[in-house]
This record gives sequence, structure tokens and C-alpha cells, in this order.
Amino acid sequence: MVMFDTGDTAWILICSLLVLIMSIPAVAFFYGGLSKRKNVLNTIFLSFIAFSIISVIWVIFGYQFAFGNDINGIIGAPANFFLQGIGLDDLNGTIPTLLFVMFQCAFAGLTCAILSGALVGRMKTKAWIIFVPIWACLVYVPIAHWVWGGGWLMQMGALDFAGGAVVHINSGISALAVALVLGKRKDTSLIPHNLGYAVLGAALLWFGWMGFNGGSGLAADGLAANAIIVSNVAAATGLIVWTIIDTYIVGKPTVLGAISGAVAGLVGITPAAGFVDVPGALIIGAVAPLVSYFAIYYLKPKLGYDDALDVWGIHGMSGVWGAIATGIFAMPAIGGVAGLVSGNPNQVIIQIISVIATIIYAFAVSYILAKILDKTIGIRVDDDEEVGGLDSNLHKESAYNLN
Amino acid sequence: MVMFDTGDTAWILICSLLVLIMSIPAVAFFYGGLSKRKNVLNTIFLSFIAFSIISVIWVIFGYQFAFGNDINGIIGAPANFFLQGIGLDDLNGTIPTLLFVMFQCAFAGLTCAILSGALVGRMKTKAWIIFVPIWACLVYVPIAHWVWGGGWLMQMGALDFAGGAVVHINSGISALAVALVLGKRKDTSLIPHNLGYAVLGAALLWFGWMGFNGGSGLAADGLAANAIIVSNVAAATGLIVWTIIDTYIVGKPTVLGAISGAVAGLVGITPAAGFVDVPGALIIGAVAPLVSYFAIYYLKPKLGYDDALDVWGIHGMSGVWGAIATGIFAMPAIGGVAGLVSGNPNQVIIQIISVIATIIYAFAVSYILAKILDKTIGIRVDDDEEVGGLDSNLHKESAYNLN
Amino acid sequence: MVMFDTGDTAWILICSLLVLIMSIPAVAFFYGGLSKRKNVLNTIFLSFIAFSIISVIWVIFGYQFAFGNDINGIIGAPANFFLQGIGLDDLNGTIPTLLFVMFQCAFAGLTCAILSGALVGRMKTKAWIIFVPIWACLVYVPIAHWVWGGGWLMQMGALDFAGGAVVHINSGISALAVALVLGKRKDTSLIPHNLGYAVLGAALLWFGWMGFNGGSGLAADGLAANAIIVSNVAAATGLIVWTIIDTYIVGKPTVLGAISGAVAGLVGITPAAGFVDVPGALIIGAVAPLVSYFAIYYLKPKLGYDDALDVWGIHGMSGVWGAIATGIFAMPAIGGVAGLVSGNPNQVIIQIISVIATIIYAFAVSYILAKILDKTIGIRVDDDEEVGGLDSNLHKESAYNLN
Repeated sequence: MVMFDTGDTAWILICSLLVLIMSIPAVAFFYGGLSKRKNVLNTIFLSFIAFSIISVIWVIFGYQFAFGNDINGIIGAPANFFLQGIGLDDLNGTIPTLLFVMFQCAFAGLTCAILSGALVGRMKTKAWIIFVPIWACLVYVPIAHWVWGGGWLMQMGALDFAGGAVVHINSGISALAVALVLGKRKDTSLIPHNLGYAVLGAALLWFGWMGFNGGSGLAADGLAANAIIVSNVAAATGLIVWTIIDTYIVGKPTVLGAISGAVAGLVGITPAAGFVDVPGALIIGAVAPLVSYFAIYYLKPKLGYDDALDVWGIHGMSGVWGAIATGIFAMPAIGGVAGLVSGNPNQVIIQIISVIATIIYAFAVSYILAKILDKTIGIRVDDDEEVGGLDSNLHKESAYNLN
Repeated sequence: MVMFDTGDTAWILICSLLVLIMSIPAVAFFYGGLSKRKNVLNTIFLSFIAFSIISVIWVIFGYQFAFGNDINGIIGAPANFFLQGIGLDDLNGTIPTLLFVMFQCAFAGLTCAILSGALVGRMKTKAWIIFVPIWACLVYVPIAHWVWGGGWLMQMGALDFAGGAVVHINSGISALAVALVLGKRKDTSLIPHNLGYAVLGAALLWFGWMGFNGGSGLAADGLAANAIIVSNVAAATGLIVWTIIDTYIVGKPTVLGAISGAVAGLVGITPAAGFVDVPGALIIGAVAPLVSYFAIYYLKPKLGYDDALDVWGIHGMSGVWGAIATGIFAMPAIGGVAGLVSGNPNQVIIQIISVIATIIYAFAVSYILAKILDKTIGIRVDDDEEVGGLDSNLHKESAYNLN
Repeated sequence: MVMFDTGDTAWILICSLLVLIMSIPAVAFFYGGLSKRKNVLNTIFLSFIAFSIISVIWVIFGYQFAFGNDINGIIGAPANFFLQGIGLDDLNGTIPTLLFVMFQCAFAGLTCAILSGALVGRMKTKAWIIFVPIWACLVYVPIAHWVWGGGWLMQMGALDFAGGAVVHINSGISALAVALVLGKRKDTSLIPHNLGYAVLGAALLWFGWMGFNGGSGLAADGLAANAIIVSNVAAATGLIVWTIIDTYIVGKPTVLGAISGAVAGLVGITPAAGFVDVPGALIIGAVAPLVSYFAIYYLKPKLGYDDALDVWGIHGMSGVWGAIATGIFAMPAIGGVAGLVSGNPNQVIIQIISVIATIIYAFAVSYILAKILDKTIGIRVDDDEEVGGLDSNLHKESAYNLN
């Protein structure tokens, strides 16, 4: 029997709000601070408009296709458009169904905001505004259904507590696909115009992320507490390890490295937060920066793609690591599922399948979608707009004015 | 029988804190970023000192006059000064009475902080410090009593879930009254000195606002979840619609327009959040930017008042729209009250009466109060202080220093 | 009988997250904004790395020594390293034990982040990274045990609701000790390079602080509501009183003074928040700025120590005042303990003993530790690094780039 619980509801209500912090100022300032001064407003705009578009389509029909009754493991059965038919007293477990809708809306909006980071400095606003809702429908909604909505990956037993595949691998690989279609910027240097903004964004990510990881059990209980502890310790470990790498490779600890490490650690722990304990979190948090560092400083220059703010490098690569690590370190005492170290090597294989499926599907659809948009309306700005800066050319605004 | 509920209490505790985000950094940075570089600290100071003064008078006597036993529909009966006599275990519904006091304190402080936006760049600090407590006592407290504390508008059945009349129309029209007494600034151009700050403020508003709208049912339940969903979708819709207007009128989407639209949408949904469902929210959020855009770009230049940061334009006008729209779109299944579309046209009339009453009363008292202050101590700074900037002249500080 | 309560858990979960806001962006931006432009990144880095290091050691063994079974009033008995042996369903009162671990982790991390403010502009990164974990083990952990973990001060009846001694006196006096070993900067002027950042930090402190003070009763109830009300009113009063002092001494109200006053008020109310009511809070909030003002503008110049961002001045001095004031104004109706004004003068003496013990112990150990580090690896940067700025010399980064 399901019973309404105000404590669980209170916790998921606030978790739903923490995503607003993540989706809006956190991503906007993390990316805005890292971008060039001439592009900061455009960078912020991409996050805001993406979150807004998805907030609207989610309540009109997106939620239904992701979480409606499963159809052959592929997609949810549409019903209840505009959330009509979901009453205030309908429950999902111990919390109101409407609250579950909102919590999931936040994941959808955030994923698309994260994606934008690879595309900054060269994408047409109009193309982005068309890309976002189509991508949400064709990529986000099906993958969310597969993993969380009763689809084939869920049926297979894939573990993804708070969005390793759905949010991070998905946004990372989709970002890479669109970046490949867009091509390289004329100037690919990463000189953050305002590191303070980037720090603010990263700190708000750290804070807001706890809402996702802490809320994904949909209850205010020991599992939520464990999720927050392991998430915090993975972020901290990621920060420390990236700082160590910086110190021994670049020669100095950097603030950019520190915050990148914290985010990598958070990405890594995301799928695992409801399944692992502290020792697992320390390992996940320690390895994530290595994986992301490798992608950013070796893979990217070698392969020559322009993942502007390292969305694939941080979210994609640490997301892949986290998804696999969940299969390694899952402890039955935490989430009821055993991983490799608890004697269940199969879980690793299931996790790898979910990673591969997400990568192939999201990459293919995102790439084709970007290609079609490029061939029709064009997705890249003019050269002089890129050189002159997107803020003045696309928005007729500048972020800083002496007036 | 009333029973204490820790879940409801947890939720309203955090909602009470979200207002601190709104009243302090959100309003301060939204206004500070939009203001001229020479006035940013003064702009921030106006919000901080207003919130502080009201926090103190609220617990000394303000709460009692607003929410004490009703006297003829006009004001609450004073009692329990300094909150003496309210025990830790006294309840208001399912939450501690002291918590209700704090939640309401936040509304009072925020309303006055919002008001300051119309007055920036030309008001004497001393005049503001005297204005704030008197205005709180003479304007805020009575209107809060009328609408929420058992007064005549509440008795008449006026709906105002989270402050359409009490917070937004009230602050908007009071701001206009004081702005008229102050007169126009020498330079009325709106060139935000730091749009990043304004974006940060707007994003924190979006986040913090959910505490007001989500908490106004005083419970962690389906109504709170609905309030958050409709508030989020109204903000998103407002952002999208303002962006569309900008694109087709100014020619480019702007970040300033996007955040203005989100705030207008949030203002519009505020009185309605506990009474409407998603379709209603989409309409409310879509119309609010039209109303505010009209006020800012047509009404203001035509009538020539200097509503510096568009407090009347955004909070006042979208507040009026929201109050009336609540009477149109209220659904019995959500808040138990029918609006026009559910077959109860009377509700629209009641809403219009509450709008008119709030406008007339708040405008008249604010105008007279500002006039009296102007005739006695003077409310406008000297010309050279205005031209040279308020930060250096009134505070002997500057926001940015190269040191 | 103890029973799990989801409402209490929801509230303490979010309180645990609020500390992330305090420990990371709040302290980082408060200090970063007040520091010189050439040192802002280093200042931010000190907070981030300290919080990260302590997050890791807390879950490995720190928690156990602070809160394990008491050994002769001095320290906790070690057990459960890596939190092994603490199950998801183990309870501390009505909340999961793991959640209590996380909540306490936040206090430990924050205390060390606060400490860094006195040391900015001249401390070697490496020395800080070595200092932090040793200081946490030798100073923070024992004092936390004495006051909160069942140690001798707790046994004696010392009151410290949310960290007057453990957090503020401790960080203040330790900061002073290290600052004395470091010596004065070449340029000790306080010219905030970005007051907007400092305001943002202070506002986030105001918000996040409520998590500490509101959560320290470990329940969502009337005591939590009271704690938030008195904390908010003390902050507001502190802001107002510092503004008054500024106006009558410096001649102008300043934003720096306003935010300093708010922080002083919050520090003052911290130990008292669970024991006093509104009149007590008004007095505590009004006196705190006087005490801190005295330390900053008279004591510091007279004694010649270089407490760069006034950690001792604000946290230490207002912490001492708050600890003693708790013994004066404690009301049996709030926290069950009587203070001086309720007829129990002994409580003041107990409070003074806890203040003196904390000051002597934390000062002595911190001083000796800093001295040892100074004699071995050296704790102060080279002169040219200090003059040229720590960001470029220690991190090869700059906060603002025109690119």
C-alpha cells in the first residue's frame, strides 16, 4: 500500500528546486565564465532558452512519452497531455505524481543546458532554438524511458541512480556530435574571461547536484543521506586529484583545474550515488579526473574536435566511467544490487551495454539532426559574427558596460 | 483537529529561507546589475537595509497588526509584541506559529526590496531609511491584513495565493508613486552596467520564488507540487514570449528581455499558483510579457514617469494581469474555487475590486508619505551627487577597484 | 523509543546542503571580493581545497574521533573508519546517523574555510594544504568532541547551539595564531577589489547560515523556527547597528559595513539560536557589531597583527560575545536552560570557561603547528610573489581576462 508522506514530499520538492539552481545560474555561470568576453551573454542565453523550451514541452507531452506505460521497451504511451488527468492526490510511491513530473522536468532541462557548452561561440541562436525541442523529443525522452521509465535498459537491470547515462553521457556525446557538425571555432583557446563566474557556477553545481543525487531515491531517508555523503566526497576527491595532476603536470595548482575536478567527481558519482558506499565513492571520485583529463588534454587535441567547454571531456567521459564503476562498486547493503566487487560481474556488462546504447543512439540522432539543420537553415554563424563576438552580433548587447 | 507535521514544517522552513535568497542577492543583483556602474552599491544597499529594517519591526509588532484578530476587516488587533506569548508548540494549521511568522516576514521584507527598484539613482539614503518602516506600517501591513489576515478582501473571497496584490501590485504602484514625487533622473537611459549580475539575480529570483509560490499552501503536498509546476512553466513561457517579441520588434533576442520575461511570468502566476493548472499557467505566462512590454515601451515614455528599473512595468502590470487571470482560470480541482472559465464570472469582479483597492490605497498613502518626506527632509539627492554617482557620494565606496 | 521521521530528515538533509553554499561560494566570494584583485583566485582556492580535504578525512576517520564514544572527556573512541558499520537505517535521534555525519562534516569544512580569511595574500599553497588536515585533527576534532561529542565542556553544561565556540571562536583565534606566525603583509590596506562579490558572499552566508542554526536541533519543529527567526533578526540588527556606527563615525553608511554587521550578528546569535527569544536576539545582534568594530578599528591597529579579512575581528570577537550572551539570555521556555536573566548566573561562568578553553587550546596548537611548518617548509611566499600577486605566481592564472 502506498501512503502519502509529507517528509518525502518536502525533500523532493526542494530537490526539484535545486535543479533550477543547477540548470540556470550554475550552468550559465560555469559556461559563461569560461567563455570569451564577447560571447558570455550568448552562452548564458543558450542555457536559459533551452531550459525554458523544455519546461514547456515537458508538461505538454514530454513527460508522458518518457514515463507513460511502456510500449515494447521503447517509449511511453502518450496520455494526459498538459498533465490533464493527474490529480493533486495521485501518488508516485509516497510523493505526489505532479512532483515526480516536476523533478523529472528538471533533469530534462538541465541535460540540454549542459549540452550547450560544446557549441558556444559559433552556433546560430535560431538553429539552437529549433534543435532543442526536437532533440528533447528524439533523444532525451527515449533514453529517459529506456533507463528510468520502464524501457529495455531498465528491464535489463541497468543501474543509473541520478543520470549517468540519461544526463551526462547523453549530453556529452550529443554535444560532441553537434560540435563535429559545427566544426572548429577560429580561435579554440580556452581563456576564461571571468574565472569568478566559473567558480560561482561550479559551486552552485556542487550545491544543486545534491538535489539530483539526494532526491533520486524519491524519499528522505538513509539512502538519501548516503547519496549526499558519497556525492560530496566524490566531488572533494575529484577536486583534490585534479589539483595533484595540475601540480605535477602543469606545475601549479589551478582554480580552473580544481573546479573541473569537482565537476568530474560529481559526474562520476551520479549513477552510483544510490548504490555505493564511501570507499567506492573515493575511488570513483579519484579516477574521474584522470579520465576527463585524458580526454581534454590528449584525446581532444589528437582527434581535433572542438568540444569548446569540454562537455564530452567532463560529462561524457566521467559519465562513462561512473556508469561502469557503478557496476563495479555497487554494494547490496546500499541499493540492494551487487556489483563486481560484491561478486556480480554481470552488472558490469549490463552497465557497458547501457553506455554503448546511449552513446550510439544519442550520437547518431544528434548528428543527423544537426546535419539536417545545417543543410537547411544552417547552424553556424557567419565568420564576421564569430570574430566580432556573438553578444554584439546576435543579441545587440554587451555584458559589461561602463556607462 | 490540528496536528503538528514535521514534513510540512520542513518544507515551510526551507520556503522561509528561499525568500532570503530572493530578498537579498536576487533583488540586489537583479537591480544592481541593471543599474549604472556608479550607483550599484547604493542600489544594493537599498534592498539590504529595507529587508533588515522590516525584519526587525515585523517581529516587534508588524506581524501582530497584520495577522492578529481582525478588527472590522481593517487591521489586526495588536498583542504579543516581540512575539512574546507565542510558544514553540503553538500551531498554525500543521506548522509552528513561529514559522508562519517567519514566512510572512519574508514577504514583507521582499515587497519593500522590490519597491526600491524604481527609485534608484536619485533617492537620499536617509529618506529611504525613514520611508521604509512607515510604509511598512501604513501600506504593507494593512494590505496584508485585508488579503491574508482575515480582512475585508479575504472576507469578500479575493484570491491571492502568493502575493499578486500584497507583494507585486503593492510594490509596483507604491514604487510608481514615490518615483513621481522623486521626478526623473537626469539620465534615464537603461544601460545595464553588468548584465551577468542581472542574470544571476533573475536566476535566483526564479529559484527563490518557488519558495513563496510553493509554500503558500503551508503544506508539502500535491498543491505545493502543482504550484511549483505552474510557476516554472509560467516563467519559462514568459521568457519565451518576451524573446519572441524582442526578435520581431527589436530584431534580436536579448538576454535582458529573456530575464524580464521570466520575471513577468513569475509575477503573473503568483496569485494564481494555488488555483490554476498547466493550461492556465501557459496563458498567464504568455500574456504577462505582453502587458509588461506595453507598459515599459509605450506607457512609460508616453506618460513620462521615471520607473527606473521598471518595477511598475513588471511587478505592477503583470501583477494586475495575474490577479485578474486568477479569477478567470481558477479551477475547482486545484484550489477549490471556480473562476470564469469554470463558470463563476463573479470571481473576476472580486479580483478586479481587490486590484483597484490595492492600487488606490497603496498609491495614495505612498504618494502622500513621499510628499511629506520631500517637503520636510527632502528625498532627492543633490544634482552633483546624482551626476557623480551615489556610490562615491553617499557611501564613499566604489564597487570595483583595481588596487 | 527513537523513531525515524521523514520530515526531520528532509529538513536536516537540506540543512546539510546549505552548508555547501556557505562553505564554498559564500566564504569564497565574501573573501574573494574583499581581497586584492591579484589574489582573488588564491583566496578562493584556499576555501575550496580546505573544504575538500576535510570532507575526505571526515568520512575516513574525523567523524569517529569527534563523535565516537567519549574517552575521559577528551576525544571520541575510533571505530567505523570509512563509515563502515554505519547502516542506512541506523538512527541518531529521529534522523539517519549518516545524515548526522554529513551535517557535522559541513561544520568542520566550513570552520577551516573561514579560518583562511586571515591568511590571504601571503601564505604558501603547499603550507596551507599541509596545515589543513593536521589542524582539523588536532584542533577542530577535539573541540567538537568537547562541546558536542560528549566531552568535558558538554558534561559541564556549556551551551553552543550551532558553533559559537566550535566554529567561530575556534576559526577566529586559530586564524589569529597563524596570522601572527605569518607576519604582516607588505600592503595591509583593505580595498575590496569587487564589493559585488563580497555582497554576494555575505548574502549567501545569511541564507546558508540558517541551515546551521535552523538544523542544529536536528528536527523540523518550533525550535527550528525560533532559531531561524532569532538568527534573521540578529543579522538584520547587526546590519542596522553597523550602518549607524558607520554613519556617525566614518560619516557615511557603507555597504562593506552593512554586510560586516550582518555577519557579526549571525556569528553572535549562532551559539544562542536554540536558547534565546526575540528580545535576546535583538540585544545580541546589536552588541555584536560594537564588539567586532572595536576589534577591527582599535585593537588591530593598536596590537599590529595582520588579520587580513578580519576573521578574528568578526568571527572571533562576536563569537566570544555570543557565547557569553547565551549564558546571559538563555530562556528555559526555548531550550530548557536558564541563563543569567532567568536567574542562573552559573551559566555565564560555564560559558566563559568554554570560551577560555577554546581560545587557549586552539591558539596554542595552531600557533605551534604554524611555527613548525614555518621552520620546516616555510609558510610565507617570497616577497616578489606577494607583490606580484598570488594568482599569477602561485596558480599561473588571472581572474579576469579580456581575451
